[in-house]
Amino acid sequence: MGKGVHVQDLPGVGKRYDIDLGRPDQRISVIMRSGGVRDLYVFATASAEPTAVIELTEEQARKVSAVLSATFFES
Amino acid sequence: MGKGVHVQDLPGVGKRYDIDLGRPDQRISVIMRSGGVRDLYVFATASAEPTAVIELTEEQARKVSAVLSATFFES
Repeated sequence: MGKGVHVQDLPGVGKRYDIDLGRPDQRISVIMRSGGVRDLYVFATASAEPTAVIELTEEQARKVSAVLSATFFES
Repeated sequence: MGKGVHVQDLPGVGKRYDIDLGRPDQRISVIMRSGGVRDLYVFATASAEPTAVIELTEEQARKVSAVLSATFFES
Protein backbone atom coordinates (compact mmCIF):
# COMPACT_ATOMS: atom_id res chain seq x y z
CA MET A 1 0.00 0.00 0.00
CA GLY A 2 3.01 2.31 0.46
CA LYS A 3 3.35 2.64 -3.30
CA GLY A 4 2.54 6.10 -4.52
CA VAL A 5 2.65 7.79 -1.13
CA HIS A 6 5.63 9.93 -0.19
CA VAL A 7 6.04 10.54 3.53
CA GLN A 8 8.12 13.35 4.91
CA ASP A 9 8.80 14.36 8.52
CA LEU A 10 8.06 17.97 9.30
CA PRO A 11 9.99 18.54 12.52
CA GLY A 12 7.89 20.35 15.10
CA VAL A 13 4.78 20.04 12.95
CA GLY A 14 4.09 16.41 12.15
CA LYS A 15 4.19 14.41 8.94
CA ARG A 16 3.38 15.20 5.37
CA TYR A 17 1.91 12.56 3.06
CA ASP A 18 1.92 13.20 -0.66
CA ILE A 19 -0.41 10.86 -2.44
CA ASP A 20 0.40 10.31 -6.10
CA LEU A 21 -2.73 9.91 -8.19
CA GLY A 22 -0.83 9.22 -11.38
CA ARG A 23 -1.50 12.63 -12.90
CA PRO A 24 0.38 15.88 -12.43
CA ASP A 25 -2.90 17.78 -12.25
CA GLN A 26 -4.53 15.59 -9.61
CA ARG A 27 -2.70 15.37 -6.31
CA ILE A 28 -3.64 15.12 -2.67
CA SER A 29 -1.39 15.92 0.28
CA VAL A 30 -2.22 15.51 3.93
CA ILE A 31 -0.35 17.17 6.75
CA MET A 32 -0.90 15.19 9.90
CA ARG A 33 -0.18 17.55 12.75
CA SER A 34 1.14 16.21 16.03
CA GLY A 35 -2.06 17.24 17.82
CA GLY A 36 -4.26 15.17 15.49
CA VAL A 37 -5.48 17.89 13.16
CA ARG A 38 -5.14 17.08 9.46
CA ASP A 39 -4.71 19.62 6.72
CA LEU A 40 -6.04 18.28 3.45
CA TYR A 41 -4.45 19.87 0.39
CA VAL A 42 -6.11 19.19 -2.93
CA PHE A 43 -4.31 20.05 -6.15
CA ALA A 44 -6.65 19.94 -9.14
CA THR A 45 -4.22 21.68 -11.50
CA ALA A 46 -0.51 21.17 -12.23
CA SER A 47 0.29 24.27 -10.14
CA ALA A 48 2.27 24.02 -6.92
CA GLU A 49 -0.48 26.06 -5.26
CA PRO A 50 -3.26 23.93 -3.80
CA THR A 51 -6.71 24.38 -5.32
CA ALA A 52 -8.38 23.82 -1.98
CA VAL A 53 -7.23 23.45 1.61
CA ILE A 54 -9.46 21.97 4.32
CA GLU A 55 -8.63 21.63 7.99
CA LEU A 56 -10.05 18.51 9.58
CA THR A 57 -10.25 17.48 13.20
CA GLU A 58 -9.34 13.89 13.93
CA GLU A 59 -13.04 12.97 14.11
CA GLN A 60 -13.85 14.70 10.83
CA ALA A 61 -10.88 13.04 9.13
CA ARG A 62 -12.12 9.64 10.30
CA LYS A 63 -15.55 10.38 8.84
CA VAL A 64 -14.09 11.33 5.45
CA SER A 65 -11.82 8.28 5.65
CA ALA A 66 -14.74 5.95 6.31
CA VAL A 67 -16.73 7.33 3.40
CA LEU A 68 -13.76 7.03 1.01
CA SER A 69 -13.03 3.44 2.01
CA ALA A 70 -16.72 2.51 1.85
CA THR A 71 -16.77 1.52 5.49
CA PHE A 72 -19.14 4.28 6.47
CA PHE A 73 -22.48 3.17 7.81
CA GLU A 74 -25.38 5.36 8.78
CA SER A 75 -26.17 5.17 12.45
CA MET B 1 -20.45 8.03 13.41
CA GLY B 2 -23.43 8.80 11.14
CA LYS B 3 -23.74 12.26 12.66
CA GLY B 4 -22.86 14.99 10.24
CA VAL B 5 -22.98 12.84 7.13
CA HIS B 6 -25.94 13.08 4.79
CA VAL B 7 -26.37 10.13 2.44
CA GLN B 8 -28.43 10.30 -0.70
CA ASP B 9 -29.12 7.66 -3.33
CA LEU B 10 -28.35 8.71 -6.87
CA PRO B 11 -30.29 6.19 -8.95
CA GLY B 12 -28.18 4.78 -11.75
CA VAL B 13 -25.06 6.49 -10.43
CA GLY B 14 -24.40 5.41 -6.86
CA LYS B 15 -24.51 7.25 -3.56
CA ARG B 16 -23.67 10.75 -2.51
CA TYR B 17 -22.21 11.48 0.94
CA ASP B 18 -22.20 15.05 2.17
CA ILE B 19 -19.88 15.44 5.11
CA ASP B 20 -20.66 18.38 7.36
CA LEU B 21 -17.54 19.98 8.74
CA GLY B 22 -19.41 22.46 10.88
CA ARG B 23 -18.70 25.42 8.64
CA PRO B 24 -20.55 26.61 5.55
CA ASP B 25 -17.24 27.34 3.82
CA GLN B 26 -15.66 23.95 4.47
CA ARG B 27 -17.52 20.99 3.05
CA ILE B 28 -16.61 17.68 1.51
CA SER B 29 -18.86 15.50 -0.63
CA VAL B 30 -18.07 12.10 -2.05
CA ILE B 31 -19.93 10.46 -4.88
CA MET B 32 -19.42 6.75 -4.68
CA ARG B 33 -20.12 5.40 -8.13
CA SER B 34 -21.48 1.89 -8.54
CA GLY B 35 -18.27 0.77 -10.28
CA GLY B 36 -16.10 1.81 -7.34
CA VAL B 37 -14.83 5.15 -8.59
CA ARG B 38 -15.17 7.99 -6.08
CA ASP B 39 -15.54 11.63 -6.98
CA LEU B 40 -14.20 13.83 -4.19
CA TYR B 41 -15.75 17.28 -4.11
CA VAL B 42 -14.08 19.84 -1.91
CA PHE B 43 -15.85 23.09 -1.10
CA ALA B 44 -13.51 25.64 0.46
CA THR B 45 -15.90 28.57 0.07
CA ALA B 46 -19.59 29.00 0.85
CA SER B 47 -20.38 28.69 -2.88
CA ALA B 48 -22.38 25.77 -4.24
CA GLU B 49 -19.62 25.28 -6.81
CA PRO B 50 -16.88 22.94 -5.65
CA THR B 51 -13.42 24.45 -5.29
CA ALA B 52 -11.77 21.23 -6.40
CA VAL B 53 -12.94 17.93 -7.82
CA ILE B 54 -10.75 14.84 -7.82
CA GLU B 55 -11.61 11.46 -9.33
CA LEU B 56 -10.23 8.54 -7.35
CA THR B 57 -10.06 4.88 -8.23
CA GLU B 58 -11.01 2.50 -5.45
CA GLU B 59 -7.31 1.86 -4.70
CA GLN B 60 -6.48 5.57 -4.61
CA ALA B 61 -9.44 6.27 -2.36
CA ARG B 62 -8.24 3.58 0.06
CA LYS B 63 -4.82 5.19 0.14
CA VAL B 64 -6.24 8.62 0.95
CA SER B 65 -8.55 6.99 3.50
CA ALA B 66 -5.64 5.25 5.25
CA VAL B 67 -3.63 8.46 5.46
CA LEU B 68 -6.60 10.41 6.86
CA SER B 69 -7.37 7.81 9.52
CA ALA B 70 -3.68 7.46 10.43
CA THR B 71 -3.67 3.78 9.52
CA PHE B 72 -1.28 4.27 6.64
CA PHE B 73 2.04 2.52 7.00
CA GLU B 74 4.97 2.72 4.66
CA SER B 75 5.76 -0.60 3.03
